[in-house]
Amino acid sequence: MDIREALYTTRAMRRVKPDPIPEDVQMRILDAAIRAPSGGNNQNWRFMLVDDPAKREQLGELYKVCIDLLWATIYKDKMDDAESDSTDPEAVQMRKIIKSVGWAQDNFASYPLLLFAFDRNDSSGGSIFPAIWSAMLAARAEDVGSSLTSVLAFKNSETFEILGVPEDKGWKMAACIPMGYPTGTWGVAERDPVHEVAYRNTWGDDVGFVIDEPLWSPES
Amino acid sequence: MDIREALYTTRAMRRVKPDPIPEDVQMRILDAAIRAPSGGNNQNWRFMLVDDPAKREQLGELYKVCIDLLWATIYKDKMDDAESDSTDPEAVQMRKIIKSVGWAQDNFASYPLLLFAFDRNDSSGGSIFPAIWSAMLAARAEDVGSSLTSVLAFKNSETFEILGVPEDKGWKMAACIPMGYPTGTWGVAERDPVHEVAYRNTWGDDVGFVIDEPLWSPES
Repeated sequence: MDIREALYTTRAMRRVKPDPIPEDVQMRILDAAIRAPSGGNNQNWRFMLVDDPAKREQLGELYKVCIDLLWATIYKDKMDDAESDSTDPEAVQMRKIIKSVGWAQDNFASYPLLLFAFDRNDSSGGSIFPAIWSAMLAARAEDVGSSLTSVLAFKNSETFEILGVPEDKGWKMAACIPMGYPTGTWGVAERDPVHEVAYRNTWGDDVGFVIDEPLWSPES
Repeated sequence: MDIREALYTTRAMRRVKPDPIPEDVQMRILDAAIRAPSGGNNQNWRFMLVDDPAKREQLGELYKVCIDLLWATIYKDKMDDAESDSTDPEAVQMRKIIKSVGWAQDNFASYPLLLFAFDRNDSSGGSIFPAIWSAMLAARAEDVGSSLTSVLAFKNSETFEILGVPEDKGWKMAACIPMGYPTGTWGVAERDPVHEVAYRNTWGDDVGFVIDEPLWSPES
């Protein structure tokens, strides 16, 4: 798969089938992930694949609780907007996210594979999220859908207990990435265009070009 | 370019030529970056391209000071090791990094393009580093080398002043990515193998496979 197709079409894929992901595919995903850069090339990371049904069940229970907590706290205002009859684009988008995440809440245990990523001494996240994103891009190239959630941090101790992560070694759970073969189709993610979020030389100054349409599309 | 070639060969490229990066290449790099995911798709990010020679000069002065600070503080022990005659792999690697970063210290102003990335309300970095890594991968596909540094954070106010970033809007500088056409060649990054950094189902348990050689190589 072309790099640009992967970069343009890898988006949160929460609705997936329970079909298992073959071991050779898992190997290619992880081997791509560990090629990512980290500060001083310290590779202060650990990855964990979870396919044990009992653990997925337990984690699914935690995930459900954590998402409810997320909606009730950090996303409270957005939830209120979404639950109103607002036609504001943000409210419309939020409704889509709630529905998609609701599917994940109801079906978490059916994800055939969960990838957890842990880092240490990495205050910015800059030494783990490139590897996580590489894993998701490598998965995309194998037609495996994924999404990224940090919400289990609400129940960090419980998650560490299920996974057997030592609490005293400085490891931090950076993300959980549920994976599986999508029930839907891949498409280009909609985003605010570059000229609205990019500047040149000075904050607020035009970046120097306007990009009205994505520079890659399935037809290109 | 194939996604796997990009994932395997995008590594810190600090030694680059002063040749400018054409505008259409810059457009493709940024348009790929903004396709990345962010928490709740909030896209709470800003990107800045810097090609102004006077600003690159000023930033180069800051970079020099910041790297010296980095070596004298966070990397003090590693520096001492590197400066000994140790043949420990970590000391050997550190010597290489010092040399490469030293080149960047001496030549910072000659980078034809700097890409800065800023985020807001993103405590983990998970909503900005995927976009940053996408920019670096998209650059790789254009034969543009890059590296990632957060070291200017040592002189955050001075950097914000040069770039005109408002101090009171919650923006945080996530990274500076110097870019340019490499003087050297691309190669697969050496890393600790997957089976040494990955587990299955329980912390410490075998991931279930051994990967002795990278699963992609220029010959594959």
